[in-house]
Amino acid sequence: MTNFSQTDYRWMARALQLARNGRFTTSPNPNVGCVLTDSAGHLIAEGWHQQAGGPHAEIIALRQAGDKARGAVAYVTLEPCSHFGRTPPCAQALIQAGVKRVVAAMADPNPLVAGRGLTMLTEAGIEVSSGLMCEQAQAINPGFIRRMTQGRPLVTLKLAASLDGKTAMENGHSRWITGEKARLDVQRHRAASCAILTGSGTVMLDDPALNVRLSEQQLGLDGLTVRQPMRVIVDSRNQLNPDYRLFSLPGEILLANKRVSPHLFARQVRQWHCTDQGSRVNLAALMDFLGSLGVNNLWVESGAALAGALLQQKLVDKLVLYQAPKLMGDKAKGLALMPSLSHMDEAIGLDWQDIRMVGEDLRLTARVCY
Amino acid sequence: MTNFSQTDYRWMARALQLARNGRFTTSPNPNVGCVLTDSAGHLIAEGWHQQAGGPHAEIIALRQAGDKARGAVAYVTLEPCSHFGRTPPCAQALIQAGVKRVVAAMADPNPLVAGRGLTMLTEAGIEVSSGLMCEQAQAINPGFIRRMTQGRPLVTLKLAASLDGKTAMENGHSRWITGEKARLDVQRHRAASCAILTGSGTVMLDDPALNVRLSEQQLGLDGLTVRQPMRVIVDSRNQLNPDYRLFSLPGEILLANKRVSPHLFARQVRQWHCTDQGSRVNLAALMDFLGSLGVNNLWVESGAALAGALLQQKLVDKLVLYQAPKLMGDKAKGLALMPSLSHMDEAIGLDWQDIRMVGEDLRLTARVCY
Repeated sequence: MTNFSQTDYRWMARALQLARNGRFTTSPNPNVGCVLTDSAGHLIAEGWHQQAGGPHAEIIALRQAGDKARGAVAYVTLEPCSHFGRTPPCAQALIQAGVKRVVAAMADPNPLVAGRGLTMLTEAGIEVSSGLMCEQAQAINPGFIRRMTQGRPLVTLKLAASLDGKTAMENGHSRWITGEKARLDVQRHRAASCAILTGSGTVMLDDPALNVRLSEQQLGLDGLTVRQPMRVIVDSRNQLNPDYRLFSLPGEILLANKRVSPHLFARQVRQWHCTDQGSRVNLAALMDFLGSLGVNNLWVESGAALAGALLQQKLVDKLVLYQAPKLMGDKAKGLALMPSLSHMDEAIGLDWQDIRMVGEDLRLTARVCY
Repeated sequence: MTNFSQTDYRWMARALQLARNGRFTTSPNPNVGCVLTDSAGHLIAEGWHQQAGGPHAEIIALRQAGDKARGAVAYVTLEPCSHFGRTPPCAQALIQAGVKRVVAAMADPNPLVAGRGLTMLTEAGIEVSSGLMCEQAQAINPGFIRRMTQGRPLVTLKLAASLDGKTAMENGHSRWITGEKARLDVQRHRAASCAILTGSGTVMLDDPALNVRLSEQQLGLDGLTVRQPMRVIVDSRNQLNPDYRLFSLPGEILLANKRVSPHLFARQVRQWHCTDQGSRVNLAALMDFLGSLGVNNLWVESGAALAGALLQQKLVDKLVLYQAPKLMGDKAKGLALMPSLSHMDEAIGLDWQDIRMVGEDLRLTARVCY
């Protein structure tokens, strides 16, 4: 284990802070930040990755530094890439710029390329160390890491309920359970997601837009455009037609069904047919498919049926539950349809991650433990 | 409005701290604390009320002060009493001791005697002021104030559920939803209550003890005995017999039914017959009766039926909900049986009072707003 100095921690913390700026725009790429300092630890330049196809964090910092990069120390929140993708490899750029030392927070999570960038740097005579603030670096790219290691997105199930776990009145009335601030918070979560998943039942009941309605300014995007997450609708029995509101709003849509819909949808609506056995879409296969499309973070806003199916099939990684300070009674609709359990041990366990007020509502975030 | 000095605030805060020591023992009396200082603001003596029949806070402090009470300032969290009860009036004792100034946090909440003690003091030439830290003083005796002003106890409904609002599996299995620390916390709430209310359904299902199993040491009671709250069981149809566990445990029991039970219960079991129309016990009348018995704080640990009935009849003042980090699914049993609501406006509103972790569970405390 390398011993890192206080200065190292300081600049890696800054690089992590920079990386987070990309949370609404970089996917399918990860969030990455880079800081260049001179050998005395004074800041030379910094950069963060803004969007796929654009320059990586290291390149932005190197450009800013110019000749001063010679002999510099580079702090990067992720191992510099070693391959030609849409842009040339960053490892090579660091070598060419004459950087003396590279400190990475974590290796590339893709097992096929992990370590290659660091090796390339080492072989060029650069002093390389990795693992500084690794946990914090992992925490800013959980979806990207999940996709790189398991080929699937990180799945977050959003629920909104009263304190007695109810989401709608018996007659379906559900507007609004939570307050305005909670709904704004949902918008931010949507904006940070690559795709939003729901079921045809929710579309037929609520006719939702499922888009991001926050402006660039509200998301703090300087010179970048709000990204509309792909909307993914599970419609096993082809119950939907193009008249629902979401189909006329800008942004990609993926209809997951069992065979091609009889309806004619607009060009931005793609159909994915799950042709395996069973009358319902294979949700695990859908997750693999979304992974193959580059979806890092999937945000689920669904009814109790799809929520229950995802939970039962162990496909939910995280729960975000907005609890409104009200009681709706046992006749109202519940959160998740699941088969009857007979013993407390069979309940789905959760690990608290965060608990906070969002306006008048309480927001609980928990990891699902299967 | 009197201007209070920093010294006044300091000693009233201390008196409030002392008063809280009595929270497990003083009922049906309120928690009261008293501090005596000299005119320069130096502490002379202090006291708090320990239990009904014992000396009041003022008397304890005066005894401790002896001759030093002459010319002293007395800080009391509640207006000194003016009547002969089980003990002589404190106002008179303060006059006789030669106290120069009396500062009270609040007047007596009993509208029949409010202000009398202060008037008695003023008429004796003592400088009197009232209202210092009044809100804080009210907060330590909400049940006593409720009973004095409305003749009923403050009713707190305790619930324990999963995040999806479920209290038991479909087959009734419910041990344990919450962790050990939450159950210990329930014990402390029981210990601070004058009575515990449940229904015959819960008794038949769980055969609970409904007693306080904490020791004097665990409650921090120095030289005082743990008080067993009265157990109040709503048994409209006389379904209970003396074989249930709680009937053989020490402590008073009140059986609330429609007519005398055919069973022969032990002497500590009192029956209260609610003879008005309807097949169920009149819960509002029961609250009045409990108020007449001196019950300040009623702690409800019931099933969904009684919980729902109390909520619908607007008899619950406060909710304490322990939420376990798990999901139990829609087939499991819910928190409160209530008639079907058709609009979100009809939901029972809550005002957050406190949100905190208790072990691995989340404890939500909220005021019910009807």
